[in-house]
Amino acid sequence: MNYNIIPLNELINQFSRLPGIGKKTAERLSFSILEQPPEYAENFAKALTEAREKIHFCKVCQALTDLDTCQICDNPSRDHSTICVVEDPKDVMAFERMREYSGVYHVLHGVISPLDGITPDKLRIKELMSRLSSGEVKEIIMATNPTVEGEATASYISRLVKPMGIKVTRLAYGIPVGGDLEYADEFTLARSLEGRNEI
Amino acid sequence: MNYNIIPLNELINQFSRLPGIGKKTAERLSFSILEQPPEYAENFAKALTEAREKIHFCKVCQALTDLDTCQICDNPSRDHSTICVVEDPKDVMAFERMREYSGVYHVLHGVISPLDGITPDKLRIKELMSRLSSGEVKEIIMATNPTVEGEATASYISRLVKPMGIKVTRLAYGIPVGGDLEYADEFTLARSLEGRNEI
Repeated sequence: MNYNIIPLNELINQFSRLPGIGKKTAERLSFSILEQPPEYAENFAKALTEAREKIHFCKVCQALTDLDTCQICDNPSRDHSTICVVEDPKDVMAFERMREYSGVYHVLHGVISPLDGITPDKLRIKELMSRLSSGEVKEIIMATNPTVEGEATASYISRLVKPMGIKVTRLAYGIPVGGDLEYADEFTLARSLEGRNEI
Repeated sequence: MNYNIIPLNELINQFSRLPGIGKKTAERLSFSILEQPPEYAENFAKALTEAREKIHFCKVCQALTDLDTCQICDNPSRDHSTICVVEDPKDVMAFERMREYSGVYHVLHGVISPLDGITPDKLRIKELMSRLSSGEVKEIIMATNPTVEGEATASYISRLVKPMGIKVTRLAYGIPVGGDLEYADEFTLARSLEGRNEI
């Protein structure tokens, strides 16, 4: 009673290696590929290989790009004296969606986490420091995540940068817009009170 | 302020065409592809094209296979006198997981649904009838889904098959194993009472 379609199993297997995709979902997705016209599978396969081949890190800011330097670093109308330091290429996307920030970025590709073996030399901190040496940069905005590791990384970098006479700022903590005070945790609420502004 | 990575957008676009995958999930999956070694994207792309190219319908039972006739139809140790008629190739997988059924299958690839323009001639009913003409088949188990369309299809086929002197059965309705009576809907409960067995 063995019913085994090897190419189907292989496809299910590849889908289930994706984060958050279990066996059942992988099966559902694989069947949906088989139900669609063959062009879809072809285009999907092409998109996969092309994305993986063409996308790499911007040689300046380490964000994702398919060019030599990314569109943000290449854009003369952006403010190259302000660098927003983030953990992950996805964070650049989040900032860009906001459409409020006109400076440039630097992606660390992680946070300092000695327990996981991630020491400062594993991050793109050297690359950040070499960008600062030109003297053009006036402000570094530390936009690492509000976690213990994110905080540690922010203060580590700020200790390196401050002696160079560059202003270092950190994103504000507080209650999220549209949030409900009742459900805010005590740490967030305390930080929100601490950072209150006159209106 | 335009930050556009065309190959990434294309990959996100392909992922979000999958059923149940929204924009955010498609982004997350695409980034995970970029984070993994390039071999993963290559193997994934290969699995996609191969699955779509190699898998087609078994010429006998219309289930999915990468062979000429599927492993079930080809297996002489299975009971070829019992055909279980299902709507969808996925249903064959569900039956095979059970490991209790030793007959063969027939996949209709849909159910009769005049409102959606699915008339009996759009389903693989002709193929089923030609399998019955050999006289080898003793029983047809109608295993379409317990929906209005599934029922209608089951009784349509049973009206065609019964005059040929072939036994037609239908899967039992009842409360699901491990279910809770409290949450069973009235129709299921009524059918379950109707179909009660002596113990």
